[in-house]
Formats: sequence, structure tokens, C-alpha cells
Amino acid sequence: MQRILAIDAGGTSTRAALITDSGDCLGVGLAGSGNPVAVGPASALAAVLAATRNAIAHSGENAPELSTALVAMAGANPDLPAERIGTELEQFGLAGTASVAPDLLATYFSGTFRPDGFALVAGTGSIAARVAAGALERVSGGTGWLLGDAGSGYWIGHRVVRAVIGAVDGTAPATALTVALTDALGVTASSEVQHGRPRALTALMESLYALRPVELARFAPLAFAAGEDAVAGRILGEAASELVSILNAVRPAGSAGPVVLGGGLLGGGLLGGGVDSRRSPLTASLALALGDAEIITVADGLVGAAVLGLTQAGIEIDARLFERLSRQVSERRA
Amino acid sequence: MQRILAIDAGGTSTRAALITDSGDCLGVGLAGSGNPVAVGPASALAAVLAATRNAIAHSGENAPELSTALVAMAGANPDLPAERIGTELEQFGLAGTASVAPDLLATYFSGTFRPDGFALVAGTGSIAARVAAGALERVSGGTGWLLGDAGSGYWIGHRVVRAVIGAVDGTAPATALTVALTDALGVTASSEVQHGRPRALTALMESLYALRPVELARFAPLAFAAGEDAVAGRILGEAASELVSILNAVRPAGSAGPVVLGGGLLGGGLLGGGVDSRRSPLTASLALALGDAEIITVADGLVGAAVLGLTQAGIEIDARLFERLSRQVSERRA
Repeated sequence: MQRILAIDAGGTSTRAALITDSGDCLGVGLAGSGNPVAVGPASALAAVLAATRNAIAHSGENAPELSTALVAMAGANPDLPAERIGTELEQFGLAGTASVAPDLLATYFSGTFRPDGFALVAGTGSIAARVAAGALERVSGGTGWLLGDAGSGYWIGHRVVRAVIGAVDGTAPATALTVALTDALGVTASSEVQHGRPRALTALMESLYALRPVELARFAPLAFAAGEDAVAGRILGEAASELVSILNAVRPAGSAGPVVLGGGLLGGGLLGGGVDSRRSPLTASLALALGDAEIITVADGLVGAAVLGLTQAGIEIDARLFERLSRQVSERRA
Repeated sequence: MQRILAIDAGGTSTRAALITDSGDCLGVGLAGSGNPVAVGPASALAAVLAATRNAIAHSGENAPELSTALVAMAGANPDLPAERIGTELEQFGLAGTASVAPDLLATYFSGTFRPDGFALVAGTGSIAARVAAGALERVSGGTGWLLGDAGSGYWIGHRVVRAVIGAVDGTAPATALTVALTDALGVTASSEVQHGRPRALTALMESLYALRPVELARFAPLAFAAGEDAVAGRILGEAASELVSILNAVRPAGSAGPVVLGGGLLGGGLLGGGVDSRRSPLTASLALALGDAEIITVADGLVGAAVLGLTQAGIEIDARLFERLSRQVSERRA
């Protein structure tokens, strides 16, 4: 019986699973951010190793031999090549090689074992992919906060903030987002005018320019929590349209194959105001636009990393094995 | 006869004029950026002094006594108070005090001596003001590249770049802006796909993320140079709407008083493709939206700084004095 190490190195946390070639999950482990772009290659590597240590401890196995390791990670990372990760994993019993795969592919394979389909991920950023014969054939979006990432958490947060700035400045309609944002920033919503401007506007500008632009993503939840507010509703409706655009760019009309949805905005986590992302206005608009496509929602890429690890180890995956793997990973995480 | 020093300290250049209390212009001088936020207070002060030296040299006067100095400058600058500028100007014969006034007010008074009206300035940023009794009563816009500045050079440049990224990525319509931008950046517009993405897209992202965000303003001219391109036309039409919004926020319907237009996009300079900013699609849309308002276009704030300097010196300005001052400043600059 082979033992395979699967790792999903994400921006928020890193997840590892120790699995067998028959799809059993022996243990899972968690660690901090494993995105080398976000935290640097050294921290990302440390997170991969910590998650591995935790997964092995969780399995209760004593120094198991690992035939294969697969790490799902954002982008290509010349500073953290698969060889380096493999060498470090030898201390945990890795006898074979380590491979790195795109995190987007792991997200896709967390939802299905079928080799052809689509993924749409919206978290801080947004990206879509067409998967063909088990590989990423075409990607759209993912061009970052300044140039793209339309419909993403950054994009929504940025629009929330601009809508409030406009409302306070008198150039845009009033919105419930104003009180929500001033509360979130601890700014007094005073309409007193100083130097020709409402003091609240100056205070908002000072607070917001003190952030790195990409941190505006933290205000996306305010749009989800805003209930019936028309301005928030329009932002979320436009976000859905933008996400449909990036998906359509890789998905010709009439395409077969499942659409796997993932990321913080779509993957089933809680958004602002306790809204489940699978039942938000954004997801509702998306589902409407996707018509009768088969939609599958996944929380992260751990099962997909295991699918890719099993494939790497030469094991063919069918519906039964995929179902067993998904269930066991889920049970071990509970 | 009093001699008054008027300075318009702008982001691109600093202009000085030596004028008399009867509205004669004795000399003008030019220097580099005088915006303390952009270049730091020391460089801004150096530009003010250099422009002053050049204006006095141009006048041919030998160490004239200056009764008043007025410096028009962006924002309030605690690091460069009027007292400090006044002390430095003593070496040029300043006997009275130096005052600092908002550059927006100087732009307004470059177009009219009347104490009540409106200014709309669009350069890298965008801002509008209501002037009442000779002072800024209310401003709108001017909230910077990340939070506002709708309709500005940054805003247009950012949209140009996003439109091209979308076109190359397949999420937005094709546009003539693509060739214009790839040419401007020296990027090969190859449609060859690598890692699931057109190589041109990766190359554009690398070039554009190497810039500071606000530098995207440099691509605004591409929209003006794009002729009949529908995407560029829509960007400029939306920019005009945004500028109307910030003006309307300070200008109640049916208001009397002139509207002074200034800044690089509106002030009469040349835009992309040799388009005169007074005859661009942006200005045409603006004029249409403003109906029968009296529109006055100004290139910068030098005449207005002189108006504010004369007022500061206790001199009342009428139509005849304003006309004389405008003509003389213009002649001395020629």
C-alpha cells in the first residue's frame, strides 16, 4: 500500500492530507499561509512542512514511507521549485518525488474527478479555467487588483469604498454602506464641512489611504451584509456579471462538463452578515447566468491535491474512488 | 507703485509673475514642480524660489521691493507654511507677508474676477469647486486615484489599460487601444498561449505592475488619439459624465456664475493624437451637459494667483484691471 502526501498551499492556510492508493485518508494537518508570493518562499515552505508534520501526527502512523508528494500552489514559483520541497520532505519519509501543480487545478479536482470541465474561483482575486484532459488548457482573469480581478473580493471592496466616498462627497446616491464603512473604520460620520469638504470624507480618505490597496478586499463583506440596499445590490449584480465574463472567456457556449466554484466568495464560507456564500445574491445571479450547467461548490483544493497526487502515483481515479476520497478527507477534517 | 509677486506652484511646473498694483506684468519665470506632496517640501520651496528669481530677471528690475507674495499651491501643507516661504522670499526683496492659497482658487480666478462661480479641473486627478465671495465654499472630487478622481487622466488611463487587458484576455471587446498600448509599452502583441494565457497578456501585466498605479495616467492620451474606436469613445463619454457629477455636486441646478475649466485634460493643451483639449470628445460632452452655462477655459493658475495677490494687497479688481492683467501676463509669457 502506497502512502501519498497531498498539500493545498493557500493564501490563508495550508492543508495537508496523508492518503493511501485506495483513497483512504489517514490524517490531515493545517498550517499558515503557503503562498510564496504573499509570505515569501521560506515561510511558504515552512507552512508546507508544518502541515505535513501535523497530518502525519494526526494519522498516528510512525514514520510512514511516502511514495509521492503533490503540492498545489498559486502560480509558478521559481524561488520554491518542486525539487527543493522534495528534498525538505525527505525528513518526513518521502522516498519518491514531489510535484507542484497549480492551485486552480486542485480546486477543480476537489469538485470532480472528470478530466474535462471548468473552474471559477473568487476570493481576494478572481480567475477562471478550462480543464481539458486533466490539465489547465486556458485561464482567464487572475490579472490582479489593479488590472483585473473583476468580481473578486478586492473588486467588490473597492466599489463599496468608492460608493461611500461618492455618497459622502455628494456625487453618488446615499447608501447603507456609508454607516457600515464608517463603523468598520471607526470614523465619525460628521457632515460638518471643513476646508469645503465634509469632515467625514477627509477622515475616510485618511483611513483608507493608510491601507495597501489590496486590503480594500476586507470591505467586500459589507456589500453582502447590506441586505436590500440598492447600491450594494448593484455592486453584487455587476460582480456576478464580471465573473460570468471571465468564465465565458474560457467556456464556449454549449460546453459540456461541470463548473466547479471555489474561493472565499463562492466556496461555502460565511460572508458578511452571516450570509452563506452558497446562498448569496452573487451566487444566485451566477447560477441564473449559468442556466442548466452542473455546478459544484468546493471549500478549498485539498481533495483535488489528493486527486492530483494519486494521478501522479499512477493510480486511475473513478467515481467510486473519488467519492471515497472526498468522504474520508471530509471525515478526517471534522 | 506696489510690486506683487504671484506664484502658481503646480505639479508639473511652477510659474511666477511680478506684477504692479495697476495690473501690469513686469516679468514671468518658470521652474520645476512646486507640489510639496509630489516632490517634498524642500524641492517645492526650491521651485518657488527659482521661479521668483527667473521672473525678477525677466522683468529687468534691479532688486525690486515686493509688498506682497501669494503662492497658489495644492492642499494645505503643514510642512511648508506661508511663514517659511515668506522668510525665504526676503532675499528677493519681500517686505510684506507671503500667503498661500488653494491652487483650485487660482485656477478659478485665472478665468474671471467675479467672486461667485465654479471651477472644474481635470489633470491627473479631478476636482470641482464652488467659489462664493471670493473663497472656496465647497469642493467635490479630488479624493485621489484609488478612491475617486473620476473622469481624470488617471481614471481614463486606468480604464484604457483595463480595456486592453480584458480584450487580450477575451473578457472584453476588441479595441484599437490594444495596439496603441502594446506599442507604447514595447510589448509584442503575440497571441501565442503559454501556461494557459496569451503571452501578450503576461507581458502587459509585467510592464504595468512595474509602474506606480498613478502613472497609469500616462495612457489617457491613447483614448484621445483612438479616433472612432468605440471602446475609447465610451471611456471618454463616461469620463465626461463623471466630471459633470463632481461639478453638479457643488453646483445646484440653475446656478448663475461662470464655470472655469482647467487642468491638462480641459485647459487647452494638446492631448493624444494632436487633439486640442478644448475640442476633444470629452470637452464636447461636457459642454453639452453644461447647456447654456458660461464656460471659460484656462491653461493654469498664474493669472488667478496674481488676482489673489492683488486682493491680498488690498486692491479691488474690476473688469478693466482683470482684462489688462490677463493680457499682460499672456504677452510676457509669449
